[in-house]
Amino acid sequence: MKEIVAIIRPEKLEEVKNALEEAGCHGMTVTEVRGRGRQLGVTESYRGRDYRIDLLPKTKIEIVVNDEEVDRVIETIVKNAQTGDIGDGKIFISSVEDVVRIRTGESGKKAV
Amino acid sequence: MKEIVAIIRPEKLEEVKNALEEAGCHGMTVTEVRGRGRQLGVTESYRGRDYRIDLLPKTKIEIVVNDEEVDRVIETIVKNAQTGDIGDGKIFISSVEDVVRIRTGESGKKAV
Amino acid sequence: MKEIVAIIRPEKLEEVKNALEEAGCHGMTVTEVRGRGRQLGVTESYRGRDYRIDLLPKTKIEIVVNDEEVDRVIETIVKNAQTGDIGDGKIFISSVEDVVRIRTGESGKKAV
Ligand SMILES: Nc1ncnc2c1ncn2[C@@H]1O[C@H](COP(=O)(O)OP(=O)(O)OP(=O)(O)O)[C@@H](O)[C@H]1O
Ligand SMILES: Nc1ncnc2c1ncn2[C@@H]1O[C@H](COP(=O)(O)OP(=O)(O)OP(=O)(O)O)[C@@H](O)[C@H]1O
Ligand SMILES: Nc1ncnc2c1ncn2[C@@H]1O[C@H](COP(=O)(O)OP(=O)(O)OP(=O)(O)O)[C@@H](O)[C@H]1O
Ligand SMILES: [Mg+2]
Ligand SMILES: [Mg+2]
Ligand SMILES: [Mg+2]
Repeated sequence: MKEIVAIIRPEKLEEVKNALEEAGCHGMTVTEVRGRGRQLGVTESYRGRDYRIDLLPKTKIEIVVNDEEVDRVIETIVKNAQTGDIGDGKIFISSVEDVVRIRTGESGKKAV
Repeated sequence: MKEIVAIIRPEKLEEVKNALEEAGCHGMTVTEVRGRGRQLGVTESYRGRDYRIDLLPKTKIEIVVNDEEVDRVIETIVKNAQTGDIGDGKIFISSVEDVVRIRTGESGKKAV
Repeated sequence: MKEIVAIIRPEKLEEVKNALEEAGCHGMTVTEVRGRGRQLGVTESYRGRDYRIDLLPKTKIEIVVNDEEVDRVIETIVKNAQTGDIGDGKIFISSVEDVVRIRTGESGKKAV
C-alpha cells in the first residue's frame, strides 16, 4: 500500500477530484494548507497577484491506494492539476504498512 | 517507531482522545480535514443529512508511538470511533525513522 | 528522499521559515493543527495562560528533502523553534519513495 500526497492549486481541486473519481479512485482526504516551492526571488501568481517567496494557499490531497493503482493516480493528478506555470505543485509517494476500516475492523489490502 | 493516522467522525474526537489518554497515549496532533471514502452512488450521513459522494468534514489524528504501543492505540481508536454506519473512518499505519524532541534535542525512542 | 515533519509553536513559524530559507531550504507545506504532548497533569502555556492536558494550537511544517539535507534542516528547526519550555514541539523523520513536480512531470531527486 502507498500513500500519495499531492499539493495542488486550490482552484484545481474540483477538476482533480472528479478525474480521480472517473479513474475509479474514490477515497481521499483533503486539507487546506499554505506552502512555498523552490523559487527564491522569483514570483508566483495567486488570484492574479504576484508574490515573491512566501506561503501561498495550496490544497493537500492524501490518497492511500494499493500498489497497482499508484501510476494511474499520479498520472490523473498530474494531467488535471497542471497549468504549466510555476507553483503547479508536487506529489510525494511513500509506503504504508497497514490500513484498518474502522466500521468493520478489517485490515490490509481489502480495507484500502 | 510508527505513525498511526486515523481519519474519524468529528463528533468522535472527544471520546477517542479521552480513551487514548486512559490507555496511556498522550501525544497526538489533530487536523480538521474533508474526505470521502469508497462509496459511489451511496449516501453517507453528516449531521442528520444524507450526502452522495462528496467531501465531508472529518477529523485527522496523527500519533507517533513506539512499536509496542501500536496495537493498543489501534484497538482504542477502533473501539471508540466506531458507530457501525458507513463513514466511520480509516486508520493508516506507516514507519517513522526518527523522532526529535525540540526542547531537549534528544532523539530516538525516548523522544517519542 | 526524506520527509521531515515538525510540529512547532505557532509564534515560531516566522523565525523557523526564515532560518530555513537562509539554510537554502525553500520548499515547505504548513498546516494549522492542534496537539498535545506527553504531559499529563502538568500545565503548558499558550499566550500567557496555563492549560492542563488538552489540544493547544500548533503549526505543522512538512519538508521533503534529499537525504544529504536532512541533518541541516533538523538542526535549523531545533535551533529556531526552541524556547526551553515544555511544548516546544517534535520532529518526525520518515522515508519518501518518490517525488513528482506537477508542472514538468519530472520525478526523483531533481524534482524535490
Ligand atoms: N520540498 C517540499 N517539501 C514540502 N512541500 C513542498 C516542497 N516543494 C513544494 N512543496 C509544496 O508544494 C507547493 C507547490 O510547490 P511548487 O509547485 O512551487 O514546487 P516547485 O518545486 O517550486 O515547482 P515549480 O518550479 O513548478 O514551481 C508548495 O507551495 C508547497 O506547499
Ligand atoms: N483510500 C483513502 N485514502 C485517503 N483517505 C481516505 C481513504 N479512504 C478513506 N479516507 C478518509 O477516511 C474518511 C472516512 O472514510 P470511510 O470511513 O468512508 O472509508 P470507507 O473505506 O468508505 O469505509 P466505509 O465503507 O465504512 O464507509 C474519508 O472521508 C477520507 O477522509
Ligand atoms: N507522539 C506524538 N504523536 C503525534 N504528535 C505529537 C506527539 N508528541 C507531540 N506531538 C505534537 O507536538 C506538539 C508539541 O509536543 P511537545 O513539545 O509538548 O512534546 P513533548 O514530548 O511533550 O515534549 P516536552 O516535554 O518538551 O513538552 C503536540 O502538541 C503535538 O501536536
Ligand atoms: Mg515553485
Ligand atoms: Mg465510506
Ligand atoms: Mg509536552
